[in-house]
Amino acid sequence: MSRLILFPVPIGADDADISLPPYNREMLNTCHTFIVEDIRTARRNLKRMGYTHPIDDTTFLELNKHSDPEEVSHYLDTLDDNHPIGLMSEAGLPCVADPGNLITDMAQRRGIEIVPLVGPSSILLALMASGFNGQNFAFVGYLPIDAKQRQARLRTLEQRAHREEQTQIFIETPYRNNQLLAYLASHLQADTRLCVACDLTLPTQFIRTLDARQWLDNPPDLSKRCCVFLLYK
Amino acid sequence: MSRLILFPVPIGADDADISLPPYNREMLNTCHTFIVEDIRTARRNLKRMGYTHPIDDTTFLELNKHSDPEEVSHYLDTLDDNHPIGLMSEAGLPCVADPGNLITDMAQRRGIEIVPLVGPSSILLALMASGFNGQNFAFVGYLPIDAKQRQARLRTLEQRAHREEQTQIFIETPYRNNQLLAYLASHLQADTRLCVACDLTLPTQFIRTLDARQWLDNPPDLSKRCCVFLLYK
Repeated sequence: MSRLILFPVPIGADDADISLPPYNREMLNTCHTFIVEDIRTARRNLKRMGYTHPIDDTTFLELNKHSDPEEVSHYLDTLDDNHPIGLMSEAGLPCVADPGNLITDMAQRRGIEIVPLVGPSSILLALMASGFNGQNFAFVGYLPIDAKQRQARLRTLEQRAHREEQTQIFIETPYRNNQLLAYLASHLQADTRLCVACDLTLPTQFIRTLDARQWLDNPPDLSKRCCVFLLYK
Repeated sequence: MSRLILFPVPIGADDADISLPPYNREMLNTCHTFIVEDIRTARRNLKRMGYTHPIDDTTFLELNKHSDPEEVSHYLDTLDDNHPIGLMSEAGLPCVADPGNLITDMAQRRGIEIVPLVGPSSILLALMASGFNGQNFAFVGYLPIDAKQRQARLRTLEQRAHREEQTQIFIETPYRNNQLLAYLASHLQADTRLCVACDLTLPTQFIRTLDARQWLDNPPDLSKRCCVFLLYK
């Protein structure tokens, strides 16, 4: 049966043994066609994930914000019983916090079997260690940049954290992390708890939960580091 | 530095190589004390995850709905530089869809380093393959059992799926899966998409997305199988 296989990519650790099961490598070498966001990083990632098939005999199909949906719709045409296609993210789980679902949605509508493989999710690693509710949680992507919209959005998230007991998780462009932390520390309610999870799976990893205001004292330098922010009551 | 290490457990596959990175086994054997939900299944899980330290020389501390919070608060007292403690779930990621955050919350408040390891999450595997929005999603646990409350809850989830473009994810007690599927197929709006993900990481795995009403024809038998339900527009 024809299959679309979803390959997670290490998020920080260069060592795939920290974040990928051995089975993933086995599956990787059954695919000679990959749908990827960027061909250069995909080649590098395949290498560190243990791909041994000749790279010059490997087909790459690009799927990113510049892709033409009409063209993308033909990506799955070459898929047959002997030729599964792989979908790779830039980092972490494909189709989580990235727009890969354009292709999985097409595959579902065509009745193609989709095989998701296990791998690292910075969102869930952060949630696990935050101390927050893992029986009810939401990942909401990025907060709005506009000041008024950002404030309104934060109110909604805080209400859901307090009233619905739903942990709220979001991210920021890495070079704006410090500004976001300062904003959260001063704009959240004093009784809201804020967790910052940074450099997950790397030796510099830290995951710390404090009352919102406590982050005002000696804030860590988060600039250009991959971070996840979580809030709860 | 003293550490609490969070160990994922395979969710379906008996073969740990399908769902756990090799690094987890290495870390497992540094712990001789584990906080677990049920001692019997924990012993079995340790064995299939490659734990080699003598089980009779291993300490188990129970954490479940029968635990006394006062007693649990002392679990972390034995933790020191040479003796990390492990926290294991029954299946999948600790503190995700289980109440393990009682202990991680205590650890955060005491400034103990928490190390979450990579492993399988049926919630995210289902999301990856659903074709639904992975840039905004919520896991909400179980729907209410009471008919009126259930209907109201479903309306809220459906609104968030359509208006906020937030994928809604939930689970059910396995013996009630068939009833829930029938309920969803007839009570969701006709233009709501419903994904059912079943037996993840097992050879019988299937992950299928259809319009809600389409599930009325030839519904699969989900009884006593582990399922995740997802809805989106």
